[in-house]
Amino acid sequence: MLKFASLVPVGMAMPYSSKSEPRQPVPSGTTILFQGDSITDAGRDRARYYPNDTRGLGVGYVYQIVADIMAHHPGDQLRCYNRGISGNKVYQLAERWDDDCLQLQPQVLSILIGVNDFWHTLRSDYEGTPEVFNHDLRALLIQTKEQLPDIKIILGEPFAVKGGSAITAEWSQGFRPYQNVVKEISDDLGTAFVPYQQVFDEALEKAPADHWCPDGVHPSIAGAFLMKDAWLQAFHKLI
Amino acid sequence: MLKFASLVPVGMAMPYSSKSEPRQPVPSGTTILFQGDSITDAGRDRARYYPNDTRGLGVGYVYQIVADIMAHHPGDQLRCYNRGISGNKVYQLAERWDDDCLQLQPQVLSILIGVNDFWHTLRSDYEGTPEVFNHDLRALLIQTKEQLPDIKIILGEPFAVKGGSAITAEWSQGFRPYQNVVKEISDDLGTAFVPYQQVFDEALEKAPADHWCPDGVHPSIAGAFLMKDAWLQAFHKLI
Repeated sequence: MLKFASLVPVGMAMPYSSKSEPRQPVPSGTTILFQGDSITDAGRDRARYYPNDTRGLGVGYVYQIVADIMAHHPGDQLRCYNRGISGNKVYQLAERWDDDCLQLQPQVLSILIGVNDFWHTLRSDYEGTPEVFNHDLRALLIQTKEQLPDIKIILGEPFAVKGGSAITAEWSQGFRPYQNVVKEISDDLGTAFVPYQQVFDEALEKAPADHWCPDGVHPSIAGAFLMKDAWLQAFHKLI
Repeated sequence: MLKFASLVPVGMAMPYSSKSEPRQPVPSGTTILFQGDSITDAGRDRARYYPNDTRGLGVGYVYQIVADIMAHHPGDQLRCYNRGISGNKVYQLAERWDDDCLQLQPQVLSILIGVNDFWHTLRSDYEGTPEVFNHDLRALLIQTKEQLPDIKIILGEPFAVKGGSAITAEWSQGFRPYQNVVKEISDDLGTAFVPYQQVFDEALEKAPADHWCPDGVHPSIAGAFLMKDAWLQAFHKLI
């Protein structure tokens, strides 16, 4: 098992800043796993499941993160996997967790999940609640930490970009509890946290949703760039 | 027609530095066109031919450049097109130049071409020479400047990464003349120039070709990141 130097207490509130963090060394051979839904999947070729395969990374924030990491850590034999699957809710991560997380034995696990746990209650007859989401995500992470005791976890805040075509009035009340669940679990379990909602809220001061995230859920190439920057800040504080 | 403030004399030798250049403002509505072969194409979905379409940008250096530009110029209505086509030699750019350059009326034209003009003399019975390449590329650029007098051109140096699986002994003598042609045309016509060979030569001090460009011709995600940085330096000096 690789050991990580913990430079700051994990779980500490990490204020997001638009300035780049200095890049930290990453232990050689580190495996980084990205998990989530369509935002993470981003059209990846699922047949290209080996690490660092460009076409297996999709065209979203994961691609942009891996490009940065692989360029800045050339000699470190890092292994980056994308295992996001479009449409997933948290219970669907759990169903495929053996193959798509535990077997890969990641040292760093990044999860962005939750938007469908809310959205599908509007779009289909899915009957989940914030309580179900809380229970399932918490159980998944506790199980993961039991199986992989040294794992470092980065939880991404699910987000909805105001003005996006899919963001109806129901979101303003209904979605916040799911966001709160992720923050609460992050605090309770001492994971890193990426405040994507803040990232996009600040971006809206510069250009409307159409530039960053046209439907409010799936980021544009520019929105994915902002996510990459925010994720790297959390990552370089964590390792 | 948009007008560009010329901050430095174009065509001036632009030494590559691994430090980031400050980002310059870009005139609103600027159209940026990327042209070239498979390195530029990078598996783009050719049916997604509208500007800024993530899947239409491929998964190479163009994607990474556009992500950076679109994130840093949110209000500027930039239009970025990828029209690279795998396998192209310079005469094949010329054959499709009306549709894939002139009609798009770019203010900035980025071209990376030349590796196939040499490589296909080894791999197939293509009989081009550096002289043919010089004549055809020069004619293409002169025609372009006549049709679009205010265009800013960025010429990328074709490159071969030592240790890549496709780079045989024949390259060490045979390819340099094609590289020299691009530099010479860049100087003669006053275009910006991106010294990709230097970028990759320096990268090899940190990790072997397998990390940056496994076959020596097609960059990895990490190699594309380096190209992005070098291109942005040229771009921000040019505009």
